[in-house]
Amino acid sequence: MRRSEVYHMSKNFVVVLAPDSFKESMTAKQVCEAMERGIHLIDPDVTCVHVPMADGGEGTMQSLVDATGGRVYFLKVKGPLGTEVEASYGITGDGETGILEMASASGIELVPANLRNPLLTTTYGTGQLIKGCLDHGVKKLFIGIGGSATNDGGAGVVQALGGKLLDKHGEELGFGGGELDRLASIDLTDLDKRLQTVKVEVACDVTNPLFGEKGASFVFGPQKGATPSMVECLDSNLRHYASIIKSQFNQDIAEMPGAGAAGGLGAGLMVFMNGVLKKGIDLVIEYTGLEDKIEYADMVWTGEGSIDFQTQYGKTPLGVAKIAKKYNKPVVVLAGRIDGQMERLYDQGIDSIFSILPGACTLEEALAKGEENMERTAENVMRLIKSVRV
Amino acid sequence: MRRSEVYHMSKNFVVVLAPDSFKESMTAKQVCEAMERGIHLIDPDVTCVHVPMADGGEGTMQSLVDATGGRVYFLKVKGPLGTEVEASYGITGDGETGILEMASASGIELVPANLRNPLLTTTYGTGQLIKGCLDHGVKKLFIGIGGSATNDGGAGVVQALGGKLLDKHGEELGFGGGELDRLASIDLTDLDKRLQTVKVEVACDVTNPLFGEKGASFVFGPQKGATPSMVECLDSNLRHYASIIKSQFNQDIAEMPGAGAAGGLGAGLMVFMNGVLKKGIDLVIEYTGLEDKIEYADMVWTGEGSIDFQTQYGKTPLGVAKIAKKYNKPVVVLAGRIDGQMERLYDQGIDSIFSILPGACTLEEALAKGEENMERTAENVMRLIKSVRV
Repeated sequence: MRRSEVYHMSKNFVVVLAPDSFKESMTAKQVCEAMERGIHLIDPDVTCVHVPMADGGEGTMQSLVDATGGRVYFLKVKGPLGTEVEASYGITGDGETGILEMASASGIELVPANLRNPLLTTTYGTGQLIKGCLDHGVKKLFIGIGGSATNDGGAGVVQALGGKLLDKHGEELGFGGGELDRLASIDLTDLDKRLQTVKVEVACDVTNPLFGEKGASFVFGPQKGATPSMVECLDSNLRHYASIIKSQFNQDIAEMPGAGAAGGLGAGLMVFMNGVLKKGIDLVIEYTGLEDKIEYADMVWTGEGSIDFQTQYGKTPLGVAKIAKKYNKPVVVLAGRIDGQMERLYDQGIDSIFSILPGACTLEEALAKGEENMERTAENVMRLIKSVRV
Repeated sequence: MRRSEVYHMSKNFVVVLAPDSFKESMTAKQVCEAMERGIHLIDPDVTCVHVPMADGGEGTMQSLVDATGGRVYFLKVKGPLGTEVEASYGITGDGETGILEMASASGIELVPANLRNPLLTTTYGTGQLIKGCLDHGVKKLFIGIGGSATNDGGAGVVQALGGKLLDKHGEELGFGGGELDRLASIDLTDLDKRLQTVKVEVACDVTNPLFGEKGASFVFGPQKGATPSMVECLDSNLRHYASIIKSQFNQDIAEMPGAGAAGGLGAGLMVFMNGVLKKGIDLVIEYTGLEDKIEYADMVWTGEGSIDFQTQYGKTPLGVAKIAKKYNKPVVVLAGRIDGQMERLYDQGIDSIFSILPGACTLEEALAKGEENMERTAENVMRLIKSVRV
């Protein structure tokens, strides 16, 4: 009945839907779909352009696969402690790019709290995921490196791809950041040759150096289970690792911004794969072609499970708003949770922010009813817009 | 800083703010003020016309006092069980009208659950409130009758105002619906003479007859503490009460719609005070002059703590929307809780509905942060409106 009552805004009204995923509730694609359902209840002629977004962190692979019409593959790999885990990577719709999140193979969530020990944890599984992508013949790799359990400088990745980390007796090192003090040389003879022609882009939002008081071990080690004495050891080991790299490859990696990301995986990807580090949201915007889509839209809707200027949240809405404002498009944010002062979000191009929750409820209820709440709120945003457009 | 960034919608953009109170969180006036603060953050030139609303239930007296610039008075009266309680009534700003809620003097909330017994509870205190209003020289009375603890047919009101309910020996009856079986005659000789010239309007949303299976005792008795045998007794007593009224005053009150409201107080007010029963929201709309204000507005904002088509909630937003639609004004609802399907609300003129909650939280948190949440949501509604007006 409702359709007949509404007037149609315009045959050509175009809304870009560019939300992040809502963690533990909806993928970004599901958010897009719920937004569209709400909008189309009010005006089925509005064109909804789905651009599932991410900020380089959790959910990025799924969103980029969804945004490009790609596919997810599952692979059994060595987890952070060497035991088998099922990880996943994506291939974009055009088959050109492999997308992976290191956390899928080497993430902190894969290690029970009482077993977290970055002396032992390895990025080997991440290397296996990279190899999985290479086996599809990709020309580019997009690697998200948030949420690591590791502090091995990316040594495990090198080992998984055929490189050898040798001690002074020519014996291969074992896994984990605790082994690197014995490193004497790195043998890249058998390193996967396909890496030489693949362009590697790394989504990385931190700029920490490899070692020192702002380095990987001191800043991120404790949250991965390192005690103060372990932190000292890990830091010293990464310092040694950098010195071997410098003497052998003449690369001074230590102070490169982001070398200390993901327990030094940032450094490893730069040195051994010519990886280029960029802000996650900027890479996602590039890979999704968001800007081209926004240019021809009338309005942009984005969203995130939680939005808050103080924390790590809000990167996707802000990144989307920045592009939208280049073209003077109104930006609406629909969020599961709005926390704290929003002034700086408004200052950076977000026009309005609404929570999707219908009333007081537990977090579990909020997560379970994400799609229903998103659809209802999207419907009402569209209702308000239609009611006031003159 | 924000003011300088926004363009001004119009010097003459007028928004009528006509919310109900948010029970246990904000009076309707506080809701208006929070809405205005949010709106004025975005555009200080928008004219906000405050019309604190109510639906005839709890909060009605406060809203009408606030809407008319009136004053609240406190009075010690007999509570439902005869013990003293402090109740209140209001006088409108022009001094012409007394406003009272029977629940203030004779309400169910005044009686602890284990003492609820409509054989004993009396509306005497409500009569004392009426007398309090008359002492101000008012020409009209607005009486809200929701939430009663009583089943006495309004006998207590009559007694408080000088009427005498006598048994066959000419002795006055005691208090409570349990006494009415002994009623032999009603002596109005000393009934307050001022009642003859005062116009009495009663906010009443139920249409139940005085007795019978849809009557006061059967339908509302149990929730006031009546056991099945008490219900039978109370119903029989009201039937007897009606027969005395019919034989003595030639008024057939039994089947009058609303006679059974508030334990038969509806009947009592009709018989003894020439009271006219109207829907609460319609009376409030009339008393606040809402329609005149909406006619010259660009937009109408309303709200309620909880909105839901299935329950007693939503009367105020629907009543406001009905008037707004006569003049084709957009209607926004801001609510603390949105429950269930909203289609019928949309069908009746509400354009859009938003929850003010920022995320998952307890009811206590939601109630405590009402003003902050209302202000933030109002700001964002205004932000969205400004961002899309072309």
